[in-house]
Amino acid sequence: MRCNATRTLGTTQERYDPMKLVKLLPLALVAALVPAMGLAQEAEAVEEMAEAAAMVGVTQEVTFIFNTLLFIIGGFLVFFMAAGFCMLEAGLVRSKNTTMQLLKNISLFSLAAIAYFAVGFMIMYPGDGWIIDGWLGLPMMTFLEPVGVSFDMVDDPEYASVGSDFFFQLMFCAATASIVSGAVAERIKLWPFLVFVIILTGLIYPIQASWSWGEGWLDEFGFLDFAGSSIVHSAGGWAALTGIIILGARSGKYGPDGKVNPIPGSNLALSTLGVFILWLGWFGFNGGSELAMGGADAVANVSRIMANTNAAAAGGAVGALILSQWLYRKPDLTLVLNGALAGLVSITAEPLTPNLLMATLIGAVGGIIVVITVPLMDRMKLDDVVGAVPVHLFAGIWGTLAVVLTNEDATIVGQIVGILAIGIFMAGASAIVWLIIKAIMGLRVDKESEITGLDTTELGMEAYPDFSKG
Amino acid sequence: MRCNATRTLGTTQERYDPMKLVKLLPLALVAALVPAMGLAQEAEAVEEMAEAAAMVGVTQEVTFIFNTLLFIIGGFLVFFMAAGFCMLEAGLVRSKNTTMQLLKNISLFSLAAIAYFAVGFMIMYPGDGWIIDGWLGLPMMTFLEPVGVSFDMVDDPEYASVGSDFFFQLMFCAATASIVSGAVAERIKLWPFLVFVIILTGLIYPIQASWSWGEGWLDEFGFLDFAGSSIVHSAGGWAALTGIIILGARSGKYGPDGKVNPIPGSNLALSTLGVFILWLGWFGFNGGSELAMGGADAVANVSRIMANTNAAAAGGAVGALILSQWLYRKPDLTLVLNGALAGLVSITAEPLTPNLLMATLIGAVGGIIVVITVPLMDRMKLDDVVGAVPVHLFAGIWGTLAVVLTNEDATIVGQIVGILAIGIFMAGASAIVWLIIKAIMGLRVDKESEITGLDTTELGMEAYPDFSKG
Amino acid sequence: MRCNATRTLGTTQERYDPMKLVKLLPLALVAALVPAMGLAQEAEAVEEMAEAAAMVGVTQEVTFIFNTLLFIIGGFLVFFMAAGFCMLEAGLVRSKNTTMQLLKNISLFSLAAIAYFAVGFMIMYPGDGWIIDGWLGLPMMTFLEPVGVSFDMVDDPEYASVGSDFFFQLMFCAATASIVSGAVAERIKLWPFLVFVIILTGLIYPIQASWSWGEGWLDEFGFLDFAGSSIVHSAGGWAALTGIIILGARSGKYGPDGKVNPIPGSNLALSTLGVFILWLGWFGFNGGSELAMGGADAVANVSRIMANTNAAAAGGAVGALILSQWLYRKPDLTLVLNGALAGLVSITAEPLTPNLLMATLIGAVGGIIVVITVPLMDRMKLDDVVGAVPVHLFAGIWGTLAVVLTNEDATIVGQIVGILAIGIFMAGASAIVWLIIKAIMGLRVDKESEITGLDTTELGMEAYPDFSKG
Repeated sequence: MRCNATRTLGTTQERYDPMKLVKLLPLALVAALVPAMGLAQEAEAVEEMAEAAAMVGVTQEVTFIFNTLLFIIGGFLVFFMAAGFCMLEAGLVRSKNTTMQLLKNISLFSLAAIAYFAVGFMIMYPGDGWIIDGWLGLPMMTFLEPVGVSFDMVDDPEYASVGSDFFFQLMFCAATASIVSGAVAERIKLWPFLVFVIILTGLIYPIQASWSWGEGWLDEFGFLDFAGSSIVHSAGGWAALTGIIILGARSGKYGPDGKVNPIPGSNLALSTLGVFILWLGWFGFNGGSELAMGGADAVANVSRIMANTNAAAAGGAVGALILSQWLYRKPDLTLVLNGALAGLVSITAEPLTPNLLMATLIGAVGGIIVVITVPLMDRMKLDDVVGAVPVHLFAGIWGTLAVVLTNEDATIVGQIVGILAIGIFMAGASAIVWLIIKAIMGLRVDKESEITGLDTTELGMEAYPDFSKG
Repeated sequence: MRCNATRTLGTTQERYDPMKLVKLLPLALVAALVPAMGLAQEAEAVEEMAEAAAMVGVTQEVTFIFNTLLFIIGGFLVFFMAAGFCMLEAGLVRSKNTTMQLLKNISLFSLAAIAYFAVGFMIMYPGDGWIIDGWLGLPMMTFLEPVGVSFDMVDDPEYASVGSDFFFQLMFCAATASIVSGAVAERIKLWPFLVFVIILTGLIYPIQASWSWGEGWLDEFGFLDFAGSSIVHSAGGWAALTGIIILGARSGKYGPDGKVNPIPGSNLALSTLGVFILWLGWFGFNGGSELAMGGADAVANVSRIMANTNAAAAGGAVGALILSQWLYRKPDLTLVLNGALAGLVSITAEPLTPNLLMATLIGAVGGIIVVITVPLMDRMKLDDVVGAVPVHLFAGIWGTLAVVLTNEDATIVGQIVGILAIGIFMAGASAIVWLIIKAIMGLRVDKESEITGLDTTELGMEAYPDFSKG
Repeated sequence: MRCNATRTLGTTQERYDPMKLVKLLPLALVAALVPAMGLAQEAEAVEEMAEAAAMVGVTQEVTFIFNTLLFIIGGFLVFFMAAGFCMLEAGLVRSKNTTMQLLKNISLFSLAAIAYFAVGFMIMYPGDGWIIDGWLGLPMMTFLEPVGVSFDMVDDPEYASVGSDFFFQLMFCAATASIVSGAVAERIKLWPFLVFVIILTGLIYPIQASWSWGEGWLDEFGFLDFAGSSIVHSAGGWAALTGIIILGARSGKYGPDGKVNPIPGSNLALSTLGVFILWLGWFGFNGGSELAMGGADAVANVSRIMANTNAAAAGGAVGALILSQWLYRKPDLTLVLNGALAGLVSITAEPLTPNLLMATLIGAVGGIIVVITVPLMDRMKLDDVVGAVPVHLFAGIWGTLAVVLTNEDATIVGQIVGILAIGIFMAGASAIVWLIIKAIMGLRVDKESEITGLDTTELGMEAYPDFSKG
């Protein structure tokens, strides 16, 4: 059984109480016999029975369909986040590097899709196929259920179809890589980056994700991360941070005198669109991670999650809006955009249990974290082109810790162990891979190419050739 | 019970006829006894019973799940309209004001989300909590059903989960504010605008919406507005119109000699994208307002609404295309875009009862209204940057009146009273709030700032810094 | 009964075995009597019965709702492809022709919507209303099921509501026209193009589609095209190809010395967004073409289709990425974008039966076809502005042939006959219509207008008026 949040599934399983049906049967029998016998006192008993029968609930197969549909809808929404990341990042780089950013984003998604079915999915959800129990799954290719599989032949009748589960989980894996691409933009070479993506999505991400969602050791330990504040967002953030450090800053970003030169993004309309698309996709990201909607309880939970996810994004945007106005006297659009995203990241570890006010506040803290840590990154000469590390890593840590505020099943120790374990593994594995790639292929374009722009030198294709550059 | 269209719900409730089940039981009993007794004449009775049983329908819990799912899908589609409005408006302002427009749109949505859960939702759907019966609901914070609520504990088992309902209705509230932001663009200050948004979405919109959708006095009066031609679109249009009047036109728009200087939008690709996104979102807007899809009748209605909504948008675009070609010899893209939106607004008051031809024609009239009233606005020196008043207010009035053409439950008196009541309240309340804000904070940026562009002067951040301005 | 893929429906129909319920009844009776009689041996029988009852499946009405919902979701996703095509094409034309491309795309969709309900839908699905049996349906206006239709009155209780079916199929028809608009961009006049669109969507497309999906002669012949590699994509490709030939190349594209002058697109960010939107929409395009999700088998099939569709797109992008790197030493973003689309087109004829590896490979071949045929088109002086013919026609033929690789019901003869029949009819009918329009209205703008740009000369409205042209 595969799950982002094992707990929920439990709830769902309990729903099928066949005994409910049985208890109704004597009543039904009486009701049925009554007219045949021509007795008079039928009315009340029949009424009662009938109403109970009309309520009786949801068959397992209908639940299976609903759960599968949740993954299908969640999957296409999270897929669209690839477009959101692409637009966000393409708008935040300079126009001379836009084609490269577009190419990297569509290529990384495509390679992630291949790497994940080739090995990633089975590593992440090993079932009984662990190499090291709870730590490392066996790499195998994914096979879906056969065409036209009947309900009594599906892998897990209490869950959802394998195809929908794979489709949904693939999108999470790809999102992890999308987080990296923005951070290392404007100076990394295409192919070394893509090699990193293949290893990240085929091996690194699935291994650590198996610890929690594949019923590995972190899950046993009690670490709770509903939809992946740590498992997806911080994981991507750690990979991005190590990339930034190993790659170095863009030339001209940090003056020799410690001065930070702002390099504004070339198309903020595109970036804003990207954030709206990400926000939309997040409804699938968090809502789908309920993993079930085939009962009133499950679908009501999905509803709560939708409302809370939206509240946290709003909180993040407003938090960043107010704080950037207060700090800089002028509100900063890119901080508000990243604030909304940080709000979303913050609620992702627990979008179910908070109430709307709490969700708004959890998101607002995420937005505030962005406003505070973006300049801190610059002070440390960590050149994160799109603010991916503040948004995904820092707000992701906050969101993972914040689970204890509203979910009594979470422990502060469990959360910290999860954060550290994921952080150490992701940073370590990413650093090793970045360094190996650097040694073999090189990571950075040469300085001339960086100054001219990657689109001309690396690709020979401008994104906006008809427009004069200012 | 919350509803956009009380009528529909009635239909749905009738669906649960537990007696249907009961009537089958004697038959079932016979069928069951027959094999046990080894009798011969089983075949026909059994067959008949079995077929009836397989048809018997949908349990209340399954209906509850379907209805909730409709709100979830409808909610994320209507959410995406925030992106549509943002892109439409960002493309129709000049590039020097684009960052401001982007910032206003993401901020207004976020503030609306907070204002609506803090007080708006409960004002709009007071249930028994009216301050003035049918006129003014008690402001309270929204609380959703508890986590993992079981079906026998949900607020309204014949409807949908509270969380999904809140999620869906919030998006309508935010749309009202998005309508305003385009109309008053390019000269309004950020914070005064946002204060207006908070009051609009927390108080003004919910109060008037409670009259119809919260089972208030207009609902009692027989006013019919399925998904909000008046309640959302004209309401937003009135708030926009009063803002335009109090704010005044952009400098340079109207010459002293009565000459109208066209101020073209800077990015029509973005605006066209915005219209496509809005069109997409409208399927959730109107389709979701059926409020139920847990029965064949309800889901067939949702289907009709989808088809009609699309037809009206197409009618509006074609109406504007042909009329602008005929009047100006050159078809006008911005009129066609607004024509499609006006078609959508026109069908919103009654997307269910028209047939496809009628829906197309209702939309076409909306498109024609736009082509005719956009220059009329200019003649009256009402400077509506994006055409929000023609699209949302004028076509909204038309759509509200057009209900009587296809829905025999509607009366022309009922519709006119609704239009007037909403108009008087929205215009009055908006004007008072705009004037108070103007007195306290001021509304307009200074003229120098307007000429230089709000992005540089107010925000210090250009939307397209890499491109030379023409 | 309407279907994209008759086969699937068969599977679904078989699902309703009312006898399953009947067989449980004696058991139920025993279970019911047991407690009444106070007998001892109840436990096991009751348990068994109860579990079976809880599994029993899905009633016809619930299936009807799920199927209808699939069309609704599929329909709005495929609708959004209109936005995808629009952005793709608007980004691939020069900025001086962008407004025209935007106008053409929103107008063609709107006109297609009208033409399809006026005559197209009934031509495509004649039922018993053929003029020439299996070849030509009777043109009639579409009428949907009545408002609030009860389940026992719906047209086809084993399928889905007519409104949802119409809504879904309309989007396919419009997609065919969107394919054409990019190919003939930058030199065709607006109104002649739109007249072609009306005839294409009202008559030409529906006639050939009726042969396969309307249960016409190609369906009888055994031609299999699940979601329309040929019926939609190649059909659109043939219409585009004849248009390109009759219209001629853009001036300056091909030098007198046989030199090909590349004309780069003006906004590749927009084009990339368009491809992501198309990719998203394709989940509805292929997934919805399963035509059912009201059973575990059907919804598991939809899941497979989603996963395979995504895999093929990824394969197409990666195929084009690697081949363009290998051929040109610099990977080409526009080829990668078109490669992803070609992967999608390739899997469209059979997205269900391949496994993930096979789907990836089928898509990769599609991507390779694009990289190879785009320069071939230029060598033949066929000026296809966006690469629509390689993507939709060539990859569509490949995809149609590839059905035999994984679906044993397909025959190579059946597929070739389908490809040829559709090709001959589409090319012939399109050519005749293009030539008649050319004779009556003219097709091309004059040379001066082409050089100045259509936006200024034909429309008087620039897409990006604030930006200096390079």
